[in-house]
Amino acid sequence: MQCCNQLSPHEQRLQDKIEGKVDRYRATHERVFTILESFDNTRPRIDVERAKYFTESMKATEGQPLPLRWAKALMHIAENMTVYIDDHQLICGRAGYQGRYGVLYPELDGDFLGTAIEDLPNRAESPFAITPEDARVVVEEIAPFWKGKTYHEALNLALPADVHKLTYDDPQGLMSRFIVNETSSFRSSIQWVHDYEKVLKRGFRSIKEEALEKIAALDPMSPCDNVEKRPFLEAIVIVCDAIILWAKRHAKLAAELAAKETDPTRKRELETMAEICAWVPENPARTFHEAVQAQWFTQVFSRIEQKTGTIVSNGRMDQYFWPFYEKDLAEGRITEDSALELLECMWVGMAQYVDLYISPTGGAFNEGYAHWEAVTIGGQTPEGRDATNDLTYLFLKSKREFPLHYPDLAARIHSRSPERYLWEVAETIKDGSGFPKLINDEEVVPLYVSKGATFAEALDYAVSGCTEARMPNRDTYTSGGAYINFAAALEMVLYNGKMLKYGDTDLGAHTGDPCEFKTWEEFWNAYVTQHHLFLKTAFVQQHIINNLRARHFAQPMGSSLHDLCMKHCLDLHTPQIPEGINLGYFEYMGFGTVVDSLSAIKKLVFEDKKLTMGELIEALKCNFEGKEDIQQLLKSAPCYGNNDDYADSIARDIDALSVKYGRRYSPELGMHNDVRYVPFTSHVPFGRVVSATPNGRKAWSALSDGSSASHGADVNGPTAILQSNFNSKNYGMRDRAARMLNIKFTPKCVEGEEGSQKLVSFIRTFCDLKLWHVQFNVINKETLLAAQRDPEKYRNLIVRIAGYSAYFVDLSPDLQNDLIARTGHDVM
Amino acid sequence: MQCCNQLSPHEQRLQDKIEGKVDRYRATHERVFTILESFDNTRPRIDVERAKYFTESMKATEGQPLPLRWAKALMHIAENMTVYIDDHQLICGRAGYQGRYGVLYPELDGDFLGTAIEDLPNRAESPFAITPEDARVVVEEIAPFWKGKTYHEALNLALPADVHKLTYDDPQGLMSRFIVNETSSFRSSIQWVHDYEKVLKRGFRSIKEEALEKIAALDPMSPCDNVEKRPFLEAIVIVCDAIILWAKRHAKLAAELAAKETDPTRKRELETMAEICAWVPENPARTFHEAVQAQWFTQVFSRIEQKTGTIVSNGRMDQYFWPFYEKDLAEGRITEDSALELLECMWVGMAQYVDLYISPTGGAFNEGYAHWEAVTIGGQTPEGRDATNDLTYLFLKSKREFPLHYPDLAARIHSRSPERYLWEVAETIKDGSGFPKLINDEEVVPLYVSKGATFAEALDYAVSGCTEARMPNRDTYTSGGAYINFAAALEMVLYNGKMLKYGDTDLGAHTGDPCEFKTWEEFWNAYVTQHHLFLKTAFVQQHIINNLRARHFAQPMGSSLHDLCMKHCLDLHTPQIPEGINLGYFEYMGFGTVVDSLSAIKKLVFEDKKLTMGELIEALKCNFEGKEDIQQLLKSAPCYGNNDDYADSIARDIDALSVKYGRRYSPELGMHNDVRYVPFTSHVPFGRVVSATPNGRKAWSALSDGSSASHGADVNGPTAILQSNFNSKNYGMRDRAARMLNIKFTPKCVEGEEGSQKLVSFIRTFCDLKLWHVQFNVINKETLLAAQRDPEKYRNLIVRIAGYSAYFVDLSPDLQNDLIARTGHDVM
Repeated sequence: MQCCNQLSPHEQRLQDKIEGKVDRYRATHERVFTILESFDNTRPRIDVERAKYFTESMKATEGQPLPLRWAKALMHIAENMTVYIDDHQLICGRAGYQGRYGVLYPELDGDFLGTAIEDLPNRAESPFAITPEDARVVVEEIAPFWKGKTYHEALNLALPADVHKLTYDDPQGLMSRFIVNETSSFRSSIQWVHDYEKVLKRGFRSIKEEALEKIAALDPMSPCDNVEKRPFLEAIVIVCDAIILWAKRHAKLAAELAAKETDPTRKRELETMAEICAWVPENPARTFHEAVQAQWFTQVFSRIEQKTGTIVSNGRMDQYFWPFYEKDLAEGRITEDSALELLECMWVGMAQYVDLYISPTGGAFNEGYAHWEAVTIGGQTPEGRDATNDLTYLFLKSKREFPLHYPDLAARIHSRSPERYLWEVAETIKDGSGFPKLINDEEVVPLYVSKGATFAEALDYAVSGCTEARMPNRDTYTSGGAYINFAAALEMVLYNGKMLKYGDTDLGAHTGDPCEFKTWEEFWNAYVTQHHLFLKTAFVQQHIINNLRARHFAQPMGSSLHDLCMKHCLDLHTPQIPEGINLGYFEYMGFGTVVDSLSAIKKLVFEDKKLTMGELIEALKCNFEGKEDIQQLLKSAPCYGNNDDYADSIARDIDALSVKYGRRYSPELGMHNDVRYVPFTSHVPFGRVVSATPNGRKAWSALSDGSSASHGADVNGPTAILQSNFNSKNYGMRDRAARMLNIKFTPKCVEGEEGSQKLVSFIRTFCDLKLWHVQFNVINKETLLAAQRDPEKYRNLIVRIAGYSAYFVDLSPDLQNDLIARTGHDVM
Repeated sequence: MQCCNQLSPHEQRLQDKIEGKVDRYRATHERVFTILESFDNTRPRIDVERAKYFTESMKATEGQPLPLRWAKALMHIAENMTVYIDDHQLICGRAGYQGRYGVLYPELDGDFLGTAIEDLPNRAESPFAITPEDARVVVEEIAPFWKGKTYHEALNLALPADVHKLTYDDPQGLMSRFIVNETSSFRSSIQWVHDYEKVLKRGFRSIKEEALEKIAALDPMSPCDNVEKRPFLEAIVIVCDAIILWAKRHAKLAAELAAKETDPTRKRELETMAEICAWVPENPARTFHEAVQAQWFTQVFSRIEQKTGTIVSNGRMDQYFWPFYEKDLAEGRITEDSALELLECMWVGMAQYVDLYISPTGGAFNEGYAHWEAVTIGGQTPEGRDATNDLTYLFLKSKREFPLHYPDLAARIHSRSPERYLWEVAETIKDGSGFPKLINDEEVVPLYVSKGATFAEALDYAVSGCTEARMPNRDTYTSGGAYINFAAALEMVLYNGKMLKYGDTDLGAHTGDPCEFKTWEEFWNAYVTQHHLFLKTAFVQQHIINNLRARHFAQPMGSSLHDLCMKHCLDLHTPQIPEGINLGYFEYMGFGTVVDSLSAIKKLVFEDKKLTMGELIEALKCNFEGKEDIQQLLKSAPCYGNNDDYADSIARDIDALSVKYGRRYSPELGMHNDVRYVPFTSHVPFGRVVSATPNGRKAWSALSDGSSASHGADVNGPTAILQSNFNSKNYGMRDRAARMLNIKFTPKCVEGEEGSQKLVSFIRTFCDLKLWHVQFNVINKETLLAAQRDPEKYRNLIVRIAGYSAYFVDLSPDLQNDLIARTGHDVM
């Protein structure tokens, strides 16, 4: 049923812009629209200051305990880095140059930084600008020191040969094989949430005093107190001083600018900022503005401290800002609009920081300069009561009126979520910019309790990164996990341990010639063998990673905000922190692709015998050229995503392999290493190494993403996809983690009150089925095709990709086609 | 009573040699005298092959697990190193060039090897020769790789500033401060004993098969089995193959030499050696000759594997060789003399390996090319029965007839040691070459049981290094401990934390101006403060050392011979091996010096008030120049070593400080870190940094050694020294380890049957008093003075130094004077 061209509000605003009309919300968001226009569409520029001062300090402290070295480096940066106050801004604090900027983290990739820096300006995906002088500093002053010292060089050497073969495609370990892909080498740690409430309620001076008291209480005679605890506590003191000093430098700059400022309004704004920055984050915040500034200083300093995967997330902002908002509102110090403006000043600050990936693999994983400092709203209080408040609705309002892909908004849903909350969530989703994503308390809370958290801790979780749930003072795991290409495992069954992409290289297990398999069980057992080989490879990787990382990365500021780190005087990167819960994971990539392929083989080759194994393989080898009939036959087999038990039972069996393996071997790693289905944008590069697959997928094209259906395979409507997700989960065991689920509606499908009502009931079904996550694109296929044809016009078209949104025109053609190919449901 | 010039047998044989007479035992030891003369008095030569091939392999395996890298390096050495068969020798296997040779261990000191290598030939203490080509290989091929990679560089950087200050005297950590001296950086591990019996009974092929079975039993899916256990077991397989291959290369060489050999006797000897080396150490030994050869191959390969402190000891040879000796004797395959000749072939093999210390500190610690592969005889069986047998007496006979300072012979004594055994031990001591040293079962066995060993394990201990007791398959500690100069602690009380040697440098605690101390308790408490500061420094050092070493050193062959390493698949250098007992230690240096000094201060300054603190310090500062009266007064105070409770109670209080500190803080290090009094020759370099002391000792002269009395302070005869040792021990607590005790008799004093009887009863007293160790010099002062005057003539004069004997003329003047100054008791 071809629907008339009903546009989403977001599409409509774009249309208005193309026609030169002023955006209808500009008037009430004048300040932030002006700031946005100052940097939007500009090419991000590489800032070298952080890397320069970090390297200078690290050179001078070799041999000292790493947390202490890191803190001293942060102090050296805080003392020397240029501080800025942007025009029109009401909050201040940057990790680099004004405008869109990327920061270098030589501790990750210093060894090949010198060479990589040259081709950054002109690489296809996510290019960056760099000045000749800055390039010189990188090549001559920064890169040389790090040769032979970076984490990825150590990891590359430490991987046993059989594991290295499936991890990297080159001896130096720079090019991923995209089979069992490690993600720990392009970020210091995975997505994370700091305890910002601690900063607002106590301030860094109180944390410093806590450390000083602990130092005074150390036993001067004890070797452990002296060798382990003292350096850690000294690092805490130094890092607190560093962030306080850095903030005060902004106060000084604000006062100077105020003195020279002629415009009286701007003068008063600068004077206010000078007072605020002199007070926080050293002292507890007293007002909403101080709270927002203190949180922003902490967030930006975290970007200076280390490269956190997806950049550090923001926790439950509607909960920890609420007391300040409520009080200021009551005392007339603030209005709803002025509060919203302050928050949106933060959003445009976030949008200027660009997640710069030097390593080619990292870049392929996070297209569109992707980062998404998740802000969490809604959910429940630690006592299990509904947590929504007026601030919750202010965040949703900001998304509708000021459509920027920062922050990444996450709405927690539970069985008693108020009708008004679900309704406003649905309205915001219908807006069409992809926000918010939904995370389900009914799956996360009982699962985290089963993994050792108290109810109060689990009920207070904050969303982090794409889909993760973090308990700020209880979970302690920071190592990136493996992304495993199980479509490659399937291909290795077809070609006896080899893959067309890699020619004769002997990669997987020798499971024999599939043409000689008499029964489906034989084929299934061959798949199980390859599946287990990939899991063993990932677990061996993780074992080495867990022990190696603590020698290369430290996080004194992050540790100062974690109760267990302060209690046990251990840096957050320590593999085992007493009383901590290590919530690790590995990714299953290509779920829909593999399920549908196995379903096709089981049904067509072994049961209905409409096709021999030889014919199938022949068709695959020539990428269905001239074999379109076989391609269609394969596509006709039962597929995952249609609530069809034939396919969904295969999906559940595959999930069980990972869950049982995780249960059996995680204890050896001292962590929960549980199966997850959250791809970033890796389903595109992973697809590029997999030839044609038995579900009719063409060679080298994108795999299915997360726990979504293969493109076009879901023909029974969106609810069936929810049902298939439910059918394919092993709820009897706790060894599972997040599942990402993408759903695309046409604007027509969710149009009007009735559309909203259908969307609310869809969300309740998602909640009752105890699924982990769901997110939506509400957009017309025609708009995407138009944007491909005329990118300049559709500059600001935002689309939902994985755990985040990005400008459609910033994506690679492959990813654009992937989005276009996703089934656009026009009937719920 | 000036005794007429009665000479010891050893002095007599020297006299005969000076007068050109043939040594009376030469006829019955023709072969070994000939071999000895081929290398005696020659300057040792540096062999670079081990270091060259070790470095080549390590370059190619960076990043792999260390035990596996080490095993591969040993295989590369075994394949390429030159193998030799010395003329006249009946057993074969060398770790370097023929004649006296030293081996380089670049993993220890590769970074400064390039510079040190030049001055080795002409340094005062223990010079070595090196060919220009070998020097080139060191400077160009070996040293560069190790820059920035050696253990001591890492340790130097890792020590906190306050600890570094008391450990090293230079920023690079090459020069010891001789205050809290770490000894872990000039050896890969401390003295050790391998389970040689396992090699004789099973052979390395059986050990390899055990490893292969364990590999086959590994869970292919387990990350731990793959990442931790598999590489370890692969290392065991490779190292077994390496030693087997290396042995077989000797078999091939022997066969080639035999083919060319014209002399029929030598031809038969070479053919026998070819058969033996083709069989052991791959297979179990079948004859005494095979057993000796298998043991020697293992011992030599251990020198190639790593630099073990004092070089690896030989365990209970009279126990594990006994079954082969007894059987061969019964079957007429061997006679007592041919067995002795085989053993002495091993002794002259040992004597050619010279313990080469590159680091200046290491050299000062082990004068006279000191190493002493202790061979243990006597003692008890694991069932607590007396263990002496005919072989026991053969070892004693060898020492009397073939006086060579290798091996270092240790005789275990217990309350029921047979009269004949004590008598032959006394006779051998009277011989005058310093052998054997005595270790007391009655102290060691109950102490090791209290530390967690079973009776059977404790009763089967073997002597290792100077005085240590090792339980081959139960104790697992290999890190060198701290040597602590407590005379420096005393000096820091006198000069408020400073030392004259180090000028204004602020080293110790600020305990105030002693002239203002009103009471003895104030002075004592100031000493306790400095004493505790030194212990804290040593324990912090040890904490860092224990964790750092496993990253730099591995010992696959040593681990293959240790039951707990094989059971848990962990290298012997792993800090914590399950079921292992970590018997660590720290050294108390200058015991007699400190006790006598405190006794003089307590008695003369505070009690009798014959001297003010100011007068004392003034006399000390000018090194008693013109204050000889005060020096004599100080010497008159009660001294340790005379069974005088006034001094001995102070000694016990000092010992208690160390014992209680060890009890309190060892658990934090996961080990027993117990007080020990075993100095090597460090009492000489330690003395060089301590100015004049309140016991009348001149500035910069040697401190008292081990638990012996200060020179000349023991005036009540040797039994009083035993008594003082007993008085000063805290038997109520287990946190103690070895005490070394030197006693010097004049030959007259132990002359004839009556002399032997007195010596036997002296040994029984030592045993009943539960002292740990005692050793004897039986020599005339005049002989030592003559040897100083005319070193060439007294080339082969052997004297007892610390845990070992050495040629007197090889010692530095300071150490020679120290030996001369020891009280020579001429009355028992």
